[in-house]
Amino acid sequence: MLRIGIDLGGTNIAAGVVDEGGKIIAKASVPTLAKRPTEEIVSDMAKLCETVTEKAGCKLSDITSVGIGVPGTVDDKNGMVVYACNVPMANTPLAGMLRKYADKPIHLENDANAAALGEYIVNGNGAKSFVFITLGTGVGGGIILDGKIYCGFNGAGGELGHMTLVSGGIECACGKKGCWEQYASVSALVRQTKAVMDKNPDSIMHEIVKNYGKVSGRTAFEAAKKGDKAAETVVRNYLRYVADGITSIVNIFQPEKVLIGGGISHEGDYLLKPVCEFVNKYDYNRYMPKTKIEISTLFNDAGIIGAAML
Amino acid sequence: MLRIGIDLGGTNIAAGVVDEGGKIIAKASVPTLAKRPTEEIVSDMAKLCETVTEKAGCKLSDITSVGIGVPGTVDDKNGMVVYACNVPMANTPLAGMLRKYADKPIHLENDANAAALGEYIVNGNGAKSFVFITLGTGVGGGIILDGKIYCGFNGAGGELGHMTLVSGGIECACGKKGCWEQYASVSALVRQTKAVMDKNPDSIMHEIVKNYGKVSGRTAFEAAKKGDKAAETVVRNYLRYVADGITSIVNIFQPEKVLIGGGISHEGDYLLKPVCEFVNKYDYNRYMPKTKIEISTLFNDAGIIGAAML
Repeated sequence: MLRIGIDLGGTNIAAGVVDEGGKIIAKASVPTLAKRPTEEIVSDMAKLCETVTEKAGCKLSDITSVGIGVPGTVDDKNGMVVYACNVPMANTPLAGMLRKYADKPIHLENDANAAALGEYIVNGNGAKSFVFITLGTGVGGGIILDGKIYCGFNGAGGELGHMTLVSGGIECACGKKGCWEQYASVSALVRQTKAVMDKNPDSIMHEIVKNYGKVSGRTAFEAAKKGDKAAETVVRNYLRYVADGITSIVNIFQPEKVLIGGGISHEGDYLLKPVCEFVNKYDYNRYMPKTKIEISTLFNDAGIIGAAML
Repeated sequence: MLRIGIDLGGTNIAAGVVDEGGKIIAKASVPTLAKRPTEEIVSDMAKLCETVTEKAGCKLSDITSVGIGVPGTVDDKNGMVVYACNVPMANTPLAGMLRKYADKPIHLENDANAAALGEYIVNGNGAKSFVFITLGTGVGGGIILDGKIYCGFNGAGGELGHMTLVSGGIECACGKKGCWEQYASVSALVRQTKAVMDKNPDSIMHEIVKNYGKVSGRTAFEAAKKGDKAAETVVRNYLRYVADGITSIVNIFQPEKVLIGGGISHEGDYLLKPVCEFVNKYDYNRYMPKTKIEISTLFNDAGIIGAAML
């Protein structure tokens, strides 16, 4: 059984043909060009479906279903995108529009939830409870319970980045103050890095930034690995925020597994070790088996795989 | 079908005969006297089972099962209390010990989870997702998904009071800093009240405390209702902490219903109105139906009902 998964992003539309085991047979992507009319974007999504089926050596008639991960809120039952960020699809009957090109069952899901499902299928080992966290531009995530996406009675749940981590703290784009995202995202790390750089003109972070052209999520990590004290402070504080939020998630869910993805997850053990130490120390559970915390291995493919498996 | 529910507390053991609809037919309680040997406490639990069956006008043979809510961590599969606070039952085969007196299926559950199930049965209206929060000495809670207690792969989940609300904030008994419990419990409110009283010698809170003998969770609420400005500040800040934590829970779960119980819930609308205003304003969900937030009606009976229905 072959399915197509589409990961609709603000920058690129990525799609792939995925087999029953969650393996991508073929994939391709095109720029979203998000400012053009919705109809054109949908037409390109349809062309992308043709491209990937051809690449996979099969026909559209071999495809069982199409799933789309959308950056926003969806109403899958009615095939509607209710609200979207970065793509012009608010109140759009996306499933119906795509079905004109490909007459298949079409499923919609929030993109973070779809990615969580993809990670679960590939890396979940059948865990009864599984939480995926992305440390990217924002902090996103998805909750998989008994193999299914958990997203609340209205489909809008799983917004882990919008837990409060610092009550009354830095104002978030969502309007609330102190969201975890404001402390544990790449954007937050860049802000934290800049603040420490300003106070430490001798830090090698300044040289690194000169080489790369701008402060990024890697600046402090790179300098810290070279022994820069100021950078070590940035990384230590940043990872404490990451770990503190994960501890909350563990105390609430005690999931069998937590998987960390997103740009920052490329730091691997340098990220994972201190995070695990913090969580194991401060997790409320002292007597029962502990949650496994691991780094994602799929990166951008998770969205395609998860969307296909909806 | 009649069942017995036992709510084992550090101060009292309460038990009741509960019918299929979750109604208590008869109930009774005895002091726990937690410092005596475990065997004596179990013997009293057995006597209490006889007392309530007699009161209910039935026999022990009419009882289908017995459930026990335990203040701690349980391993229901093996009938073990793994860890307990306030009762001498760590590593105790409680189900087996009670079965010597009453040869029935005996189920164990954490007391907060049992209370959440009781609230769900009586006040949940069949919600697919339901979160119960107790604002008491500590902040506890329970998560009910698809009619069942959610407590993670190891049974230790649902510790909502141990989400971080203020990263690096006040140290909690659990060892972590900034737990929600340190800001939204009765103990926290008493601490917040005392701090404001110290700075406001003219506040009528001082008179109220003279009448009652000590600062309690009611002091600031009572004075605020009489227009005392200092007390209004205490209540406003305290309710902001309560609401901020509930907003996190809503952003994570988008549950159909959140029910607030525990001592502070006696404040009713005076608590509920500002909390709902905050959550509705700052909840991440702007486009889909909203979570209902209500005050518990069961108070102490929830633990008995939930334990019976395990």
